[in-house]
Amino acid sequence: MPRSGDIARANLENLYRIFTVPEAPDSTLGQIDQAISDNLAGFLQEHIVALEHELEEIEQDFACSRVPEEPTFVSDYTEFLKEKLVAQSVHTASPGFVGHMTSAIPYFMLPLSRIMIALNQNLVKVETSKAFTPLERQVLAMLHRLVYAENDAFYQRWIHDSRYALGAFCSGGTVANITALWAARNRLCGPTDTFKGIAQEGLLKSLKHLDCQGLAVLVSRRGHYSLGKAADLLGIGRENLVAVETDRHNRIDLQRLREHCRRLRGEGILPLGLIGIAGTTETGNVDPLEALADFAAEQHCHFHVDAAWGGPTLFSETHRGLLKGIERADSVTLDAHKQLYAPMGAGMVVFRDPAALSSIEHHAAYIIREGSKDLGSHTLEGSRPGMAMLVHAGLSIIGRKGYELLMDLGIRRARHFAAMIAAHPDFELITEPELNILTYRYNPGWLQAALGRATAEQTDRINARLDQVTRIVQKRQREAGKTFVSRTRIRQAGYGEEPITVFRVVLANPLTGDEILEEVLKEQCAIITEGHIPDLLDELRDLIDS
Amino acid sequence: MPRSGDIARANLENLYRIFTVPEAPDSTLGQIDQAISDNLAGFLQEHIVALEHELEEIEQDFACSRVPEEPTFVSDYTEFLKEKLVAQSVHTASPGFVGHMTSAIPYFMLPLSRIMIALNQNLVKVETSKAFTPLERQVLAMLHRLVYAENDAFYQRWIHDSRYALGAFCSGGTVANITALWAARNRLCGPTDTFKGIAQEGLLKSLKHLDCQGLAVLVSRRGHYSLGKAADLLGIGRENLVAVETDRHNRIDLQRLREHCRRLRGEGILPLGLIGIAGTTETGNVDPLEALADFAAEQHCHFHVDAAWGGPTLFSETHRGLLKGIERADSVTLDAHKQLYAPMGAGMVVFRDPAALSSIEHHAAYIIREGSKDLGSHTLEGSRPGMAMLVHAGLSIIGRKGYELLMDLGIRRARHFAAMIAAHPDFELITEPELNILTYRYNPGWLQAALGRATAEQTDRINARLDQVTRIVQKRQREAGKTFVSRTRIRQAGYGEEPITVFRVVLANPLTGDEILEEVLKEQCAIITEGHIPDLLDELRDLIDS
Repeated sequence: MPRSGDIARANLENLYRIFTVPEAPDSTLGQIDQAISDNLAGFLQEHIVALEHELEEIEQDFACSRVPEEPTFVSDYTEFLKEKLVAQSVHTASPGFVGHMTSAIPYFMLPLSRIMIALNQNLVKVETSKAFTPLERQVLAMLHRLVYAENDAFYQRWIHDSRYALGAFCSGGTVANITALWAARNRLCGPTDTFKGIAQEGLLKSLKHLDCQGLAVLVSRRGHYSLGKAADLLGIGRENLVAVETDRHNRIDLQRLREHCRRLRGEGILPLGLIGIAGTTETGNVDPLEALADFAAEQHCHFHVDAAWGGPTLFSETHRGLLKGIERADSVTLDAHKQLYAPMGAGMVVFRDPAALSSIEHHAAYIIREGSKDLGSHTLEGSRPGMAMLVHAGLSIIGRKGYELLMDLGIRRARHFAAMIAAHPDFELITEPELNILTYRYNPGWLQAALGRATAEQTDRINARLDQVTRIVQKRQREAGKTFVSRTRIRQAGYGEEPITVFRVVLANPLTGDEILEEVLKEQCAIITEGHIPDLLDELRDLIDS
Repeated sequence: MPRSGDIARANLENLYRIFTVPEAPDSTLGQIDQAISDNLAGFLQEHIVALEHELEEIEQDFACSRVPEEPTFVSDYTEFLKEKLVAQSVHTASPGFVGHMTSAIPYFMLPLSRIMIALNQNLVKVETSKAFTPLERQVLAMLHRLVYAENDAFYQRWIHDSRYALGAFCSGGTVANITALWAARNRLCGPTDTFKGIAQEGLLKSLKHLDCQGLAVLVSRRGHYSLGKAADLLGIGRENLVAVETDRHNRIDLQRLREHCRRLRGEGILPLGLIGIAGTTETGNVDPLEALADFAAEQHCHFHVDAAWGGPTLFSETHRGLLKGIERADSVTLDAHKQLYAPMGAGMVVFRDPAALSSIEHHAAYIIREGSKDLGSHTLEGSRPGMAMLVHAGLSIIGRKGYELLMDLGIRRARHFAAMIAAHPDFELITEPELNILTYRYNPGWLQAALGRATAEQTDRINARLDQVTRIVQKRQREAGKTFVSRTRIRQAGYGEEPITVFRVVLANPLTGDEILEEVLKEQCAIITEGHIPDLLDELRDLIDS
């Protein structure tokens, strides 16, 4: 029988092994690693099962709440992972997966990610990130330049001056939007001779100091839901996030915007920020940024543009004009894990004024000391990985022209798909693609004709049934696992007062060919003939006839 | 001359290639990938240059603010990366790098990270993460159980009930702390019959509704700097983040805490949250959590424990008693990229009450719909990567006993190093290790003796000089690149009124042997004899003699 000292030593040896001995190439994990390196698409195709299991069933494999007492062999764990996690994950890189904003990523991102993770840098401070610090500042400068197009002298002056920041890198667009509004709020409520500023004294005293009853943020009702979180978090309140009506192109209604501002000021509420959207999440439309910039200037309020989706359209010489006016924004959100094709977890907010982030600057005694070059003094997050490296790689390897091709391709595809839908007797295009996003629904020709003659009440009843059809089709298509579109509910001019449910298509994967788009519609037509959808359609016929 | 149509087609072909064709094994990137797989430690050792370059010099390589117009070959980019980024990054995995909380990670994390990145799931919603959703909920349940040790029935009931959440996964401890205080604030200012709650109506109306002049958060002055950000962000104000005095063991002074609370209430300010620290960032001490839980109950305020560092100590049967009382916390922050040995970018906050996060719940029409299983309805962040998988892997493969070994090892090493410092005539241990963190400084024997007899004024003057010595030594040691300790400034009982500068050592890398700790001191002793440090010490001699 071994003595306990021996056991302890043996355990310790095993522990050292996991930190020092790599997986053998012929181990289960080594083989998967190799398979992904050799042929990512093949690996995903082979290992992710197409047919969707019920989530309740999958939950059974992740039901134990106890950390296992004893260590598990890496090979056993890898087998588990392969069968229970990988097989049941979502094939986001599939060319038929056109429902969300998560796309295929270029091959080089995989080995580069390994380098990033192997280095395990922490970008909160220079001492744990060294060259990653200037690299991240460079990435922010590149995106700043893409948006604001200042001259060389400007960037030479600011790019590496750590007392200033051209932006903040973060985990995603939500934190980017929060950071923008946080900086805007703190600037509006900044220190004066008699007031130490909101960062020090808090919101209540700020509002007293400004002699107002509250702060408001205005955005069209297509604004991203992260703005609601920001309004909550920052103490502004969701009621003061004003969802301005949109026109039939899903762009903010400037007249209504003006009315809202007047009303707010009448109530003693100060407009803190006005947000323009460059690529609405649901329909991919772009607000009239030029007009919004004018209005924000008139109102003396912060102008933020949420370009998490549409920002990279600026790479396209053909389409960048759609975003005209973005260069007048005080801040702009961009998501690198969307149309810069970086892996999940890379967002950014850039600020026109390199001093803007000083309103949220903070320091500590052990890191981000005053005068240091530590990036952490201007970010909402603390410890952060070196994701900027992957964005840097994308910008460098793909280049401006490569991104231009990607942007142009997506928009062309979306227009093509829109034409296919419009030409199909049984589908109805709900929102035209301005960028590479569109919405539509199944709506057979005879019903479309009937809707043209229907009363408001009939319209609402018919739409409610069609909503049901859309929901069922979307769910079944997802479960079948061949192609995937998402769905949302939008209030749309010409479709009654109630929001209607629509299919939503995002065309960002360059591998999504036209034949796949045909497949999407064909599959939906097939689903329509199954289950109780024919009954639903019969009911609709009765409804019209009555 | 090729026609422009041909060029466009050729460019498009190249674009497809980066999405479909893997790097060849003999390409530059393929070779690096293989080298990291085969021998991570060797790769880092070989490719990261030891001698530190000036940051200003490194910045030259990251000075271009223009996105390159043309694509770059992956091989060329990789060469650049190897020479300019990898070589100039920080060897965080080095056993001699004992200054920060970023450590070596187990080997299996690298191939598993590739799987995670290849799958590119987005955990905001089930439609883009499927099995990752129950996996993340399981990880949260495991950590919840580690802290709260509820029974099987409890976890069966809550683990996968998406209307509730045992916690929130996030990018790091900062977002975890913010989330905890956000939930606490929104609960305190929750909806009533006459008030829609702070999330809706904002902070100003909340305070009016509660009839108070402000909210306060109390934490010892060893509290993490993220709490200041939280106080700013949430509109509470940094002035209302009360830094309570500490005792000589760096633990919160309960008497002073009581006095602060009394004062605040006298001013009409409501204590919103009380924070206990389980592993202070600078000194690794643990607050008296049991007593804090009592006091929080008495004050009816949210009790949060920041266990970002110390949480995994709960795995150790020998040392878990140090955290007694943590199971009474309303919420607890844990960082998986610290002592769970996951790569950078994995934090968590767990809540005792599965309904606690409903105070920050939010929905949208296209995702995180009401009633859905989408994780995004309870997180501050939106789109998030599948990092939970790596935490799951660590917990499964290393197991409870493996983490216990790691925790015990770190604490044993820290005690050993403390003994070495105490035994050395020219070093002075400033804070004893309670967990695996300690602080010390160079302070030659003759000066230590003199300090014992010095007046308060003399003490401050001597300490100011010693601070200079510590700063210089730390910087030179870092620049030499062999071993690394960090430094901080702490106010410490028995060292005058002013904060003193100290070396800070974090012993979390299991590969840091005793011989490396000897090396750390030896190197410091050598640095002391160089440059103008001998002059500084001479001045100190004069100061004492006068």
